[in-house]
Amino acid sequence: MNKNFFTTIFFSFLLTAILAQNPNRIKEPDIMKNPVRREIIMPTIPGYEIIKGDFHTHTVFSDGLVWPTIRVEEAYYDGLDAIALTEHIEYLPFRELVKGDHNTAYTIARPRADQMNILLVQAAEITRAMPPGHIVALFVEDANKLETDEYMDALVEARRQGAFLFWAHPGWVAQQPDTTLWWDVHTQLLEQDLLHGVEVFNWDDWYPVSMQWAKEKNLTWFANSDVHPVVSHSFNTRDFMRPMNLVFAQDRSLEALKEALFEQRSVAFFLDNLAGPEHLLLELFNHSVEIGRPFTTDRNGNWRVQLRNPTDLTFRLQNLESGNGATRSIVLHPRSSVIITCPASENGQTTLQYKATNLHTGMFEHPTITIIVE
Amino acid sequence: MNKNFFTTIFFSFLLTAILAQNPNRIKEPDIMKNPVRREIIMPTIPGYEIIKGDFHTHTVFSDGLVWPTIRVEEAYYDGLDAIALTEHIEYLPFRELVKGDHNTAYTIARPRADQMNILLVQAAEITRAMPPGHIVALFVEDANKLETDEYMDALVEARRQGAFLFWAHPGWVAQQPDTTLWWDVHTQLLEQDLLHGVEVFNWDDWYPVSMQWAKEKNLTWFANSDVHPVVSHSFNTRDFMRPMNLVFAQDRSLEALKEALFEQRSVAFFLDNLAGPEHLLLELFNHSVEIGRPFTTDRNGNWRVQLRNPTDLTFRLQNLESGNGATRSIVLHPRSSVIITCPASENGQTTLQYKATNLHTGMFEHPTITIIVE
Amino acid sequence: MNKNFFTTIFFSFLLTAILAQNPNRIKEPDIMKNPVRREIIMPTIPGYEIIKGDFHTHTVFSDGLVWPTIRVEEAYYDGLDAIALTEHIEYLPFRELVKGDHNTAYTIARPRADQMNILLVQAAEITRAMPPGHIVALFVEDANKLETDEYMDALVEARRQGAFLFWAHPGWVAQQPDTTLWWDVHTQLLEQDLLHGVEVFNWDDWYPVSMQWAKEKNLTWFANSDVHPVVSHSFNTRDFMRPMNLVFAQDRSLEALKEALFEQRSVAFFLDNLAGPEHLLLELFNHSVEIGRPFTTDRNGNWRVQLRNPTDLTFRLQNLESGNGATRSIVLHPRSSVIITCPASENGQTTLQYKATNLHTGMFEHPTITIIVE
Amino acid sequence: MNKNFFTTIFFSFLLTAILAQNPNRIKEPDIMKNPVRREIIMPTIPGYEIIKGDFHTHTVFSDGLVWPTIRVEEAYYDGLDAIALTEHIEYLPFRELVKGDHNTAYTIARPRADQMNILLVQAAEITRAMPPGHIVALFVEDANKLETDEYMDALVEARRQGAFLFWAHPGWVAQQPDTTLWWDVHTQLLEQDLLHGVEVFNWDDWYPVSMQWAKEKNLTWFANSDVHPVVSHSFNTRDFMRPMNLVFAQDRSLEALKEALFEQRSVAFFLDNLAGPEHLLLELFNHSVEIGRPFTTDRNGNWRVQLRNPTDLTFRLQNLESGNGATRSIVLHPRSSVIITCPASENGQTTLQYKATNLHTGMFEHPTITIIVE
Repeated sequence: MNKNFFTTIFFSFLLTAILAQNPNRIKEPDIMKNPVRREIIMPTIPGYEIIKGDFHTHTVFSDGLVWPTIRVEEAYYDGLDAIALTEHIEYLPFRELVKGDHNTAYTIARPRADQMNILLVQAAEITRAMPPGHIVALFVEDANKLETDEYMDALVEARRQGAFLFWAHPGWVAQQPDTTLWWDVHTQLLEQDLLHGVEVFNWDDWYPVSMQWAKEKNLTWFANSDVHPVVSHSFNTRDFMRPMNLVFAQDRSLEALKEALFEQRSVAFFLDNLAGPEHLLLELFNHSVEIGRPFTTDRNGNWRVQLRNPTDLTFRLQNLESGNGATRSIVLHPRSSVIITCPASENGQTTLQYKATNLHTGMFEHPTITIIVE
Repeated sequence: MNKNFFTTIFFSFLLTAILAQNPNRIKEPDIMKNPVRREIIMPTIPGYEIIKGDFHTHTVFSDGLVWPTIRVEEAYYDGLDAIALTEHIEYLPFRELVKGDHNTAYTIARPRADQMNILLVQAAEITRAMPPGHIVALFVEDANKLETDEYMDALVEARRQGAFLFWAHPGWVAQQPDTTLWWDVHTQLLEQDLLHGVEVFNWDDWYPVSMQWAKEKNLTWFANSDVHPVVSHSFNTRDFMRPMNLVFAQDRSLEALKEALFEQRSVAFFLDNLAGPEHLLLELFNHSVEIGRPFTTDRNGNWRVQLRNPTDLTFRLQNLESGNGATRSIVLHPRSSVIITCPASENGQTTLQYKATNLHTGMFEHPTITIIVE
Repeated sequence: MNKNFFTTIFFSFLLTAILAQNPNRIKEPDIMKNPVRREIIMPTIPGYEIIKGDFHTHTVFSDGLVWPTIRVEEAYYDGLDAIALTEHIEYLPFRELVKGDHNTAYTIARPRADQMNILLVQAAEITRAMPPGHIVALFVEDANKLETDEYMDALVEARRQGAFLFWAHPGWVAQQPDTTLWWDVHTQLLEQDLLHGVEVFNWDDWYPVSMQWAKEKNLTWFANSDVHPVVSHSFNTRDFMRPMNLVFAQDRSLEALKEALFEQRSVAFFLDNLAGPEHLLLELFNHSVEIGRPFTTDRNGNWRVQLRNPTDLTFRLQNLESGNGATRSIVLHPRSSVIITCPASENGQTTLQYKATNLHTGMFEHPTITIIVE
Repeated sequence: MNKNFFTTIFFSFLLTAILAQNPNRIKEPDIMKNPVRREIIMPTIPGYEIIKGDFHTHTVFSDGLVWPTIRVEEAYYDGLDAIALTEHIEYLPFRELVKGDHNTAYTIARPRADQMNILLVQAAEITRAMPPGHIVALFVEDANKLETDEYMDALVEARRQGAFLFWAHPGWVAQQPDTTLWWDVHTQLLEQDLLHGVEVFNWDDWYPVSMQWAKEKNLTWFANSDVHPVVSHSFNTRDFMRPMNLVFAQDRSLEALKEALFEQRSVAFFLDNLAGPEHLLLELFNHSVEIGRPFTTDRNGNWRVQLRNPTDLTFRLQNLESGNGATRSIVLHPRSSVIITCPASENGQTTLQYKATNLHTGMFEHPTITIIVE
């Protein structure tokens, strides 16, 4: 090696140092949030695509506090598939400053939604005193036509446009402070095909009695954020996901979403609760939880078995058969597993019955889960 | 005990169950984010109150994506003390939809700021081609008067109102793609008291050469977010705080803040870097880091000493005296301590010299920290 | 520039690439845990150094599952100042495999403690049936002498060595399944200076009645982990710190620690509860929480005031004066602040009374906190 | 309602209060770590069960710092399926205190492993100077017989027992400080069927050259922790998983694990790197990443497509065809998705070529990934 070699080495270090120390501009990507979409892991259910959607949100075009594109970005990063901007028709507190019409929020958000692969549902919130309270119309074609004197005219027009209609926050403290009542008006709406769903959860409230209505009147169940500020400023996203609906659609399209909502194929998901028709809840459990084979026997002669939940759902189970040697209480947290005990069976198969306490099929009503160990 | 006693017990359980299961409405506070302000822990520096501020942000009243009150709430929850909404005078892409004038964002945000104890600086961004580029005016009285044909008129008017003026993102790729140059115009502005500060950090960029300007021309150093979307959507708030300025003010008031900025008593804080006048950086270090007494001697005869940093600042230190037995490289993370070794001294006192590599007093220039162990 | 220049540049890149790609061995420091001590931020209380200690732990030298040095490292990284390895004298399930005597754990851990600046208390657990149950002896000189037939002999010997004695887990389900009783034996021990403290918290249990004993009989309050496996495997360190004691010592030394324990200057800290003598709890509150000045008046004419808690303690406060316009319920989480309202006062000073529900001065007994706003 | 009713209500509250305030003992489950196993999500690969294993760890029965059962519990909670306790035959620093023989650690851990459904591999580390350095023997039957004067005798005996043998940390700084050499001895071992695998990663080191050996000599690739202290004290488990091996076994059994290791069906997983035979790496990528259909076209006429990674693996991709309009650099973080652009194709299908820079098939050698968008 000669002097030139060391000169080369010297310059190599110098150049490296210089390149690393651009005096003009240095990017610091580490200070920025990682621009990835966090995928919510759902079970694979044959025949269905689960569309995760929040169908009740606001922007500055009614009384929300963000620009419409922010709602699309929140949906994308939070792992949702679909979203609706449900601006109030009748309540526009920023009217003096924020112009546009009842379709403007949708029009602004649409290109961003297309770009981010988010299904954007055109929508509006018909905002009236009780009864009927607030009715959200999804899949409208022209929200401006919902600005009518009589709420009935607005609902009929929405329906004429093909809209799906749901009752928002029926137990809202400002409208039904002490009770959460079903009014005659709602019976009429139901009979006239002007009411198809109801929120059982909204923002930080749930209304147990509305679960009973959903069950008995064949309404579609909803858990929506009804967010006005920023989602991540409002919700405890460290421990929970934002409220959302798990819609069992035939594919990931607006058409399939609409069809599924009209056919009540939706489960409301809030905190770690899942609320909806029993058959859908059982589908979620059965395709989420993998039941292992007994791998050993404990000193009491009971089998030990692993239950594995690779999804982002939670299942809380309470043994319905006391004293049978099976684990009394099971919590299957997201992406985790637990080992339970259960009575060993001579014929090689043991059947267990658990009540799923965080699954709701009606008011304070929980489905029974059957676990077959073999 | 008689039958009535057990009846009472029975009803007690029943009532308890009923009370816990209100069918009308159940609040779920756990799903909401905890509404507390996260306090950023700073050292206590005699004679000063450290005001933490972000002096460059946008809302829907120029090209930002949130309502003005959201910026105040972000500031509150992020632990800031002061904030400026710096709407562009000349760039208003939402003009067709969002009305109001150049003071509207401030007017809307002000009551919320008063309520949340946030110092709200009235401001505007004079948004011109290079030179002079974008100049932010803090402490204006009427931003509408800054809408002028000539930028010089806008700057003079701002100054007439008493404004503090700083050059935003001098190395912005759209205006100075290959270099970050100081123009003759900036010399003129400086000489005419129309330029008082410069951003050394903006969004995710820093401009080393602008640190040299700040040092040589006695400009106030700034690190601002220049945020247009939501802060928590943009910045990696798990690992870092949002960019901010640590202003050494005489008290927590707008007047003291303004005085301190005019007197260059500000340190730019971005990622874990602190950039500003050397004497302020040394104040931060000396009042943050507690140097313990030697508590034992290692097998090489060196002292072991604990350095404790109870603040939210970080200090990265490199030993300037090689081979003296003192720890070569020290990182004092927020709210943590490390044990170092240093040569034992017969007279009971050892003096160490470290370069603080994440503290910047100029372009690629770092202060020397003296640590006295005794 | 000539060809040589570009050759140099070429080789510089090549060399850089080669240096970055050492084929023999590449260190990946990112995969390792950051070797810093997480400092627990306590208030500064004039005249005292708060020593954070866990005085009940086990290693493989009785029935624990880690080597003694691991306990020291856990203490260091968890931010503790002091620790005791309290091996059972009478219960040594690994005896066939793990040899040594009752001082061995201490002897092994001591050099590591000296190196990490951890105060290591020599100790043992006298492990007997109820009464008296398990008695931990801190500050023993030779634990081997505690191996006696009669428990009384062991206690007397410990005391002869100068030991501080406390009753461990008085309500342990294995020894007092249905009740947590104080036995005559304990009265005798107390009278004979053979009992100085009691655990009010151990592992995941607390014993409210033992708080009443501590208060009435002037015993030192303890919250200890009694950890046998690894601390971070056992405790929810995401949401809470491990159980510990906050000892108000005159300096950070074993002597001062011992003196403070004998003088009942200790507060038990578990979950976010603080339990101990009222005057110490008030010291903690008063030196932790900074009460701001009223910064504005709300629309009801009440002052708005910020309470700031820069420490790692939590304070839960309940207004004792209903309907006075002051915030009903306050939670001061670690390193956070909240804004409260309180009645404005014409003379410039308002005095508020709150019950601190997570501070315990006896069984279900909480101190009253006075907040003066001015 | 009469007085009795209100008496009942009164007592109901009283009883409720009393029941909630058991003076004897209150459990605080919130302070304990949630006892669930965190499941690592792997792709489903037809014909294989992926066994996640760490095959190099120590306990107090050689120079480790935990009891053998702790290693099993760590494996369980960390989501591993298999583990080996590889105590040194020749290095027993705690020998004076910790008795037992070379099988004791296995014997102690075995019942706990059976209970937790962890595959426990009986093993030992033959600990010799270089060459041959340290050789780990997996699947031994009696480790005591490996205590021989000549290393060759130990290796032959291990092989006689059916053991799988791998070279641990070939580039360990204490044995090969400046280079990582393959010695003639290793060629002999290979020829005599006494060497079947090699660590490419150990603790915090990786040895690029050993990847080349693994590739060229058909050795099984390993990434092991070689942990001596507690895993969670050592590794940065916030950002990464502990080092492990992904073994493509026919079922989840010790027999299938052994077979797969002998057939080189293993991938070393460290930080976010995957290192192993190319066909296994391609299996992992192809069954992990779901490639969506083009859902829109951007303004440059390129397709936008979503790549979704529901697994806990990471894939870092670099476009091999510059300037083709496809996204230059892609990072697929665990359980996340990204949207990329790619040239639209008239025939409905576009084929992309990316280099997977965090996948290693040899020394600084990365496989090419083909992504077909249609």
